Amino acid sequence: MSDCVLVIGGGPAGIEAARTVADLGLRSVLIEQAQRLGGAPISCNYAALTPRFADAETGIDAMIGELAARPNAEVRTSTTVTAITGEPGAFTVTLSTGEALAGGAVILATGFDHFDPGRERQMYNYYQYPDVVTLQDLEVQLKRGEVCVPSTGKPPERICWVQCVGSRDRNIGNEWCSKVCCGVATKQAIEVRKLVPDSRAYIFYIDMRMYGFWETELYWPAQEQHHVQYIKGIITEVLERGERLLVRGEDTTMGRPLEIPMDMVVLSVGMEPSVGTRRMAALLGVAQNRHGFLDIADVPLDTVTTSRPGVFACGAALGPADLEDTISSAAAAAARAVASLRRGAATLAG
Amino acid sequence: MSDCVLVIGGGPAGIEAARTVADLGLRSVLIEQAQRLGGAPISCNYAALTPRFADAETGIDAMIGELAARPNAEVRTSTTVTAITGEPGAFTVTLSTGEALAGGAVILATGFDHFDPGRERQMYNYYQYPDVVTLQDLEVQLKRGEVCVPSTGKPPERICWVQCVGSRDRNIGNEWCSKVCCGVATKQAIEVRKLVPDSRAYIFYIDMRMYGFWETELYWPAQEQHHVQYIKGIITEVLERGERLLVRGEDTTMGRPLEIPMDMVVLSVGMEPSVGTRRMAALLGVAQNRHGFLDIADVPLDTVTTSRPGVFACGAALGPADLEDTISSAAAAAARAVASLRRGAATLAG
Repeated sequence: MSDCVLVIGGGPAGIEAARTVADLGLRSVLIEQAQRLGGAPISCNYAALTPRFADAETGIDAMIGELAARPNAEVRTSTTVTAITGEPGAFTVTLSTGEALAGGAVILATGFDHFDPGRERQMYNYYQYPDVVTLQDLEVQLKRGEVCVPSTGKPPERICWVQCVGSRDRNIGNEWCSKVCCGVATKQAIEVRKLVPDSRAYIFYIDMRMYGFWETELYWPAQEQHHVQYIKGIITEVLERGERLLVRGEDTTMGRPLEIPMDMVVLSVGMEPSVGTRRMAALLGVAQNRHGFLDIADVPLDTVTTSRPGVFACGAALGPADLEDTISSAAAAAARAVASLRRGAATLAG
Repeated sequence: MSDCVLVIGGGPAGIEAARTVADLGLRSVLIEQAQRLGGAPISCNYAALTPRFADAETGIDAMIGELAARPNAEVRTSTTVTAITGEPGAFTVTLSTGEALAGGAVILATGFDHFDPGRERQMYNYYQYPDVVTLQDLEVQLKRGEVCVPSTGKPPERICWVQCVGSRDRNIGNEWCSKVCCGVATKQAIEVRKLVPDSRAYIFYIDMRMYGFWETELYWPAQEQHHVQYIKGIITEVLERGERLLVRGEDTTMGRPLEIPMDMVVLSVGMEPSVGTRRMAALLGVAQNRHGFLDIADVPLDTVTTSRPGVFACGAALGPADLEDTISSAAAAAARAVASLRRGAATLAG
């Protein structure tokens, strides 16, 4: 019976899970394929976190620092998992470095990938027009404390967000709602309006899914204090028209065609199961739902137990998740993993 | 240094937190004011859980059974907390029974109350018309396996749900979105259409907040398989007209007034901080947000640590939460509470 929990994936979910395991008195080893921990908020250069505008790098670095301070928590970066054998209480995981690790339980925290807008069926022309960007492209600018139209280097006079790019779309096979894009786009629109007070900001949406306190912490201030304009409408194409972009679609509230010039268009790309999530699911033999995310059979009363005994999962590997979902489910997965080893040890002792 | 965690509130959050504490090797005492455990799903007679239609009573009873099987988990029902003294590691909680309990940490799982539609500023006439009911009134019927118009006892030919009753409404002071009502109303509409195949079902909404997999598990099947009709519109009043109800408002997509007869109107009432949440926050001196829910300062990277050291919180006491949020944050609160006691014990030992 190993007293170690192996955590695969070093984003916010994996960091939180590994730290929690250590805080509960067992050992954890966190395995991350990238050169450094942090996951999407770091690798994609998030500026401020939704909903309270806390600095992303500061927040994630603090979590990494907390983990590093635990003597019973180890980290392997630039490392992937290549094989797993054994059973609950006694797994052996082989790493790309050749190292073999013993662990009593495994936590999958393999996260999501951003939707590639090159796969979009509408004609948003992300790869054709430099001034069509994604949420994460704009985050990079915001992290530098600026907003500029890529082709001119000037601040945008008119900027819009197109929601549900790669989400809620049967044609491309992504039927789910990605949950966070309404909040993230609204956060960005507020930041842009603060940085470029003369700009006009528009968000084209199907439903604004500003659940819980996002309604009053983000959605109302965006409209009332920052004059972000929300237009319920479907955008079907983005064209070049002179030095500007022309956004075309339908304003569903007004029931009429919509054609509106923009300096910059931000595609609110959704979440997909990451390559690592699919690979680890296959390697470990863990059930996936029909979308490719990891499946939890007993949702909603169990949120972290996978189909394989001794293997738990958390964060956006399970489906679209905001950071609160991610942090809570990570700690929950850690608690379940530790409990499973305590129970196993008690059974052996008995 | 006590090895016991005191959990206040015996709904899904409290049950999960208390069980998790016990599974992590400490003792827990779960304190519930009602005569039995289970919280809203039991006291309000929920039929099937959102989103997968699992039987609510079966699921919650299984959780209660799991808790009861832990020798290091105790339960006090019909009991409230009347005083608390001490500090992290050594709290003393006085109960309404006169008993004094020692605990090293406290978890608040005091949940939510359903919005009272008598406080609504629109004229929905819940207390005037028997055929205007709430989500939880309809759950009682669904749990009996039936749907009937209260005044006639017959199945409804036409039934509608009015979303955002007591939510997203500055006039009544409830500015937040209650997060789950879109999903619960859709779940109920599917159940009604199955039970009464000849009925017509309408949902009047502002935004359908069917986040994540609710989009594809509930929203699409409701429309495509069960022919639930979604109308984006604001309902301003419900009147009696002959033997039927007349629902009046505006269809915002069509941009025209809306007047439609119904046999039965279901008010999708939102979540408010429960009386117990407000009372415990005051008694324990835990910060509340301006809405009255318990405040977590470091959201989103910490989801359970309150303003008072040694006191953690979870579930809908923190704000509108679905059952997945609740179960994950409950386990997270348990993990944090146990970790805080382990850390305290290590400090004393050192």
